[in-house]
Amino acid sequence: MRQLPLPKVYRLIEPGPVVLLTTLRSGHANVMAMSWHMMVEFEPPQIACVVSNRNYSFSALKSAGECVIAIPARKLASKVIKIGNSSGRDIDKFRAFGLTQLPAVRIAPPLIAECFANLECRVIDSSLVKKFNIFILEVLKAWTDPAQKRPKTIHHCGYGTFVVDGRTIKLKSRMR
Amino acid sequence: MRQLPLPKVYRLIEPGPVVLLTTLRSGHANVMAMSWHMMVEFEPPQIACVVSNRNYSFSALKSAGECVIAIPARKLASKVIKIGNSSGRDIDKFRAFGLTQLPAVRIAPPLIAECFANLECRVIDSSLVKKFNIFILEVLKAWTDPAQKRPKTIHHCGYGTFVVDGRTIKLKSRMR
Repeated sequence: MRQLPLPKVYRLIEPGPVVLLTTLRSGHANVMAMSWHMMVEFEPPQIACVVSNRNYSFSALKSAGECVIAIPARKLASKVIKIGNSSGRDIDKFRAFGLTQLPAVRIAPPLIAECFANLECRVIDSSLVKKFNIFILEVLKAWTDPAQKRPKTIHHCGYGTFVVDGRTIKLKSRMR
Repeated sequence: MRQLPLPKVYRLIEPGPVVLLTTLRSGHANVMAMSWHMMVEFEPPQIACVVSNRNYSFSALKSAGECVIAIPARKLASKVIKIGNSSGRDIDKFRAFGLTQLPAVRIAPPLIAECFANLECRVIDSSLVKKFNIFILEVLKAWTDPAQKRPKTIHHCGYGTFVVDGRTIKLKSRMR
């Protein structure tokens, strides 16, 4: 993994890909699939996300206040589905789905080696957790895999239907 | 425009398309481009979004507490760019860019006839506006244009670069 400058993080999250979220709880890493996330600030990069209190990851995220947001490319789609359809209550998802943990630098939860980008995040605001399950994260460190060139991401449309990134268009714009 | 059942709204927002946000202020409609949004709840559909206090739309949204989220298809990309690169402080964007207003049913800001989906929204929580510019919206009514079949949306990757929806894949899943 190669470090990504923090001001570039928004380019990964803004297009709305399905991501994986890793947490650590009593030494056991877990991972969930997540599509409800958005950028909140460019620099330092801040991300809001919804982790339901019905998810096993919820209490780990709430108590430890740390997570990794890992971005899978299209080739991981079938694993993403399996991750989304199972719970860390029942199985070790890293082992069951053949995902490789890499140590993070600033936080305890692991990166996922198979993902093309990994963001080390800390919870910076929990005031809307109770009412909306919304966590606000700050990205402390960002990594990309130089071996995965221009990976296509997937966008969830419900019930296992995903739109895969298609053509890239470039229009003249001042919009960051 | 045809009504869309509210429990289906998440399928439009979850994949992360660029959207347009309309507001009304002293009788004048305005529109901005927005990529920082996420679903918060399926039913009633709730959406979080970031509208910066540097945007002209901010005060209209904050004071009136109403907006329309309109979703443009790929063919509107060049207009989306123009909308994002101009301000309602200076021009009437509806007139300048040839967008057609349609009346909403539950709120005052207009729908956009050229967009394939329009969501009438009311602000239901402003507690993170001051700190993060985050508004929580509830979708009161949703519309789609039956004349636009399977429209491809666009996903912003920064500085006028967009990824257009590509292939759709369908995997077996219990995930809503």
